[in-house]
Amino acid sequence: MTVEEQVLDRIKPSPEERRILEDIAVELLLKVEDAANNHNIEGIVPKLVGSAARNTWISGTHDLDIFISFPPDTSREELESNGLRIAREVSKNGDKVEERYAEHPYINMNYKGFDVDLVPCFGVDSASCILSAVDRTPFHNEFIKMTISGLEDEVLIMKQFMKGIGTYGSELRTQGFSGYLTELLIIHYGSFISTIKSACNWKPGLTIDMMEHGIHKHNDPLVVIDPTDSKRNVAAALSLNSFAYFIDACRSYIEDPSGSFFFPEKTEAMNNNDLVNMFVSRGSSFIAIVFKAPDIVDDILYPQMRKMENGICALMEEHEFQLMRSGHWVKEEAVVLIELISSKLPYAKKHRGPPVWVSEHAKGFKEKYRESDELFSMYIEDGFYVVDIKRRFPDAKKLLNNRIKECSLGKHIRMAVEDGYSILENENILKIEDPDFRIFLKRWEQHT
Amino acid sequence: MTVEEQVLDRIKPSPEERRILEDIAVELLLKVEDAANNHNIEGIVPKLVGSAARNTWISGTHDLDIFISFPPDTSREELESNGLRIAREVSKNGDKVEERYAEHPYINMNYKGFDVDLVPCFGVDSASCILSAVDRTPFHNEFIKMTISGLEDEVLIMKQFMKGIGTYGSELRTQGFSGYLTELLIIHYGSFISTIKSACNWKPGLTIDMMEHGIHKHNDPLVVIDPTDSKRNVAAALSLNSFAYFIDACRSYIEDPSGSFFFPEKTEAMNNNDLVNMFVSRGSSFIAIVFKAPDIVDDILYPQMRKMENGICALMEEHEFQLMRSGHWVKEEAVVLIELISSKLPYAKKHRGPPVWVSEHAKGFKEKYRESDELFSMYIEDGFYVVDIKRRFPDAKKLLNNRIKECSLGKHIRMAVEDGYSILENENILKIEDPDFRIFLKRWEQHT
Repeated sequence: MTVEEQVLDRIKPSPEERRILEDIAVELLLKVEDAANNHNIEGIVPKLVGSAARNTWISGTHDLDIFISFPPDTSREELESNGLRIAREVSKNGDKVEERYAEHPYINMNYKGFDVDLVPCFGVDSASCILSAVDRTPFHNEFIKMTISGLEDEVLIMKQFMKGIGTYGSELRTQGFSGYLTELLIIHYGSFISTIKSACNWKPGLTIDMMEHGIHKHNDPLVVIDPTDSKRNVAAALSLNSFAYFIDACRSYIEDPSGSFFFPEKTEAMNNNDLVNMFVSRGSSFIAIVFKAPDIVDDILYPQMRKMENGICALMEEHEFQLMRSGHWVKEEAVVLIELISSKLPYAKKHRGPPVWVSEHAKGFKEKYRESDELFSMYIEDGFYVVDIKRRFPDAKKLLNNRIKECSLGKHIRMAVEDGYSILENENILKIEDPDFRIFLKRWEQHT
Repeated sequence: MTVEEQVLDRIKPSPEERRILEDIAVELLLKVEDAANNHNIEGIVPKLVGSAARNTWISGTHDLDIFISFPPDTSREELESNGLRIAREVSKNGDKVEERYAEHPYINMNYKGFDVDLVPCFGVDSASCILSAVDRTPFHNEFIKMTISGLEDEVLIMKQFMKGIGTYGSELRTQGFSGYLTELLIIHYGSFISTIKSACNWKPGLTIDMMEHGIHKHNDPLVVIDPTDSKRNVAAALSLNSFAYFIDACRSYIEDPSGSFFFPEKTEAMNNNDLVNMFVSRGSSFIAIVFKAPDIVDDILYPQMRKMENGICALMEEHEFQLMRSGHWVKEEAVVLIELISSKLPYAKKHRGPPVWVSEHAKGFKEKYRESDELFSMYIEDGFYVVDIKRRFPDAKKLLNNRIKECSLGKHIRMAVEDGYSILENENILKIEDPDFRIFLKRWEQHT
């Protein structure tokens, strides 16, 4: 049996598992119709969408996306109120029912062990004239159902590969490949292995335009034109790094295929000893900025974490601290971690002024510094005035303590930081004992 | 009395001092003629050249340049042998007689308290067809004597100003303004003060072409076309920094004229306490490379010192040590001194490889590092492979000890370094006790 066959064996739902899912789906679709009738809401069409509808779901995942499609001439208010009315009635038999909000409200619930979304949408005629973001999904569904036939297993294998190497999921946390994107790649390249082989030679700017729609400009590493909407890049959420990690993994897989790409060994958390060894052997300065994670959804939280990380890196560089690497991690606590060449700089800071022959600037520069009691020396180097002055922040920790709130921070993180934060350096980082954080730190020992 | 008048008072030779110099000059010129006659050497013309001949010498300087001009059809061998024969006979009455070599041999001696050069040259018809470098001097002499009349005092004041601020002298040690250049500037601008005022607005690339010769391309900060040879830049030896320091001093003088520009207070050497304070308060790392100064003339030594300093700076930067400043100093010992942000770097070094999508390079890069036991981690950042590897030289002193001989060194310094050197850091630099070195260190407390 090939590696891929072995993988498929583990992840392909059994007929029994599939039957159960299909039964539940039908049950829910009927409940939606009943609920509409009960409330005299006319013209709606219940639809099962997503991987459950396309036979591209991995065994053990129990996600059902039920869309409630309204005629396109429905008003937004009517869609929201009637949509919720139907969804609420259906969810009476569910657990953990939550009303959530994307562009408009929808309901998420647990139903007989399934994670179910009940989503109202407009049943527009074409994906190019959608009225709300979710309206596109039924078109994706139709397109995939029409074209995927016979390739479902290839999708399963690819999804598991993506999961294993950490590039599956288009949420802003992962910035990887969505299910729809994965399906399109399989349809385009014809199989798991030919996708993998092609990806070995991918370069940023690659454009896949299956329907020959012609290309709108996109500035993304990968452009996959949505077959149902020529203006949309299905891979817009994919980051350059996810793109690159995928290419790298494909090459490694071709070189030496193994099950570990699909099912990597669980990473063990670093213990205190490991960590101290890492700090000492690298000899650099690690600084962690720690605060209570704000209670917001990942798609809002992670972009803010990324923004904070970038802001802190920029602050360091502005003050001449040299960065080696940075990262962020969130669970109950949120951490931005930076690694510096050194967290200490000399008290003297060299600052270059104007060239001597630009007399108007020269005068101002000399006057500004001449009387300063923070001046070590003023001299001329390569024709430029140079001053050695007292450095405002010779210690990166003090810099952070003084200036972190001046970094460009997202709203929720700003509030969290204003409630309190701590700054830990090297051995003090051992205070963060969460095993997931200790796994996150493993990336400093990672071997691509 | 103006500042300049006071200065002139101190530096203008008295009639008595002048008479003595003139008498000695005449005495020597006659001795040259006698010696030529004694050896039956015909057609030579003895000439007094230099500042003594032009009345632009500063009281207390006792330099006499006696040129022995041969007819231009003399062979080089004849000029050298006959020139030396005459000079040797003249020098019989001198002390500390030395035969020296420039393009050809000449004699330097002490004669009745004067420092005398006896220099054979070809008496060519024009400075544009000289046969050896020194042949130009008599033309300079003629030009200045013709044009300087009435401006001699201005030259004296300017020379003293240049000396005071440290930009006088065109030797490769100073890279400043030669006597001839100073005289030309005074002739061109008409006086000390108008030269100073003009210099306040000098910019690199300034060209002064008094005879309207038309301009050959020169890439020097200041171009003063030699009135006696249109292809030559009289200011070719002037460094950008001497040029800039002169401009800066002129501006300061205009702002606040004072005698201290001409006669600066003697700089006091830094004592051990001063030095320790300086090291501690700056918080940077000072490293001195010390070796026995090779016994060669300044014009060979200083370019080699400069080359060594540049080579050491390049070595530091190549290995990621960040320079703040550097310098060199020579007496019995030679020292290259560098100031670094830090002489220590982490054991881990970040090294960026090719982008992931350049597959041929990617493969080689991964293979090179994958098996290395010096690898901390390999990952992808901004689409590029990155490795954190063991740094070969985390300590700048060890780097220097290992690699100093691989720096591009001049011949004499290479030999000196191969005979032995020491590398001192911070407090250990106190071992160098020479007061002149301790004065050199003052530039780290300099206020332009």
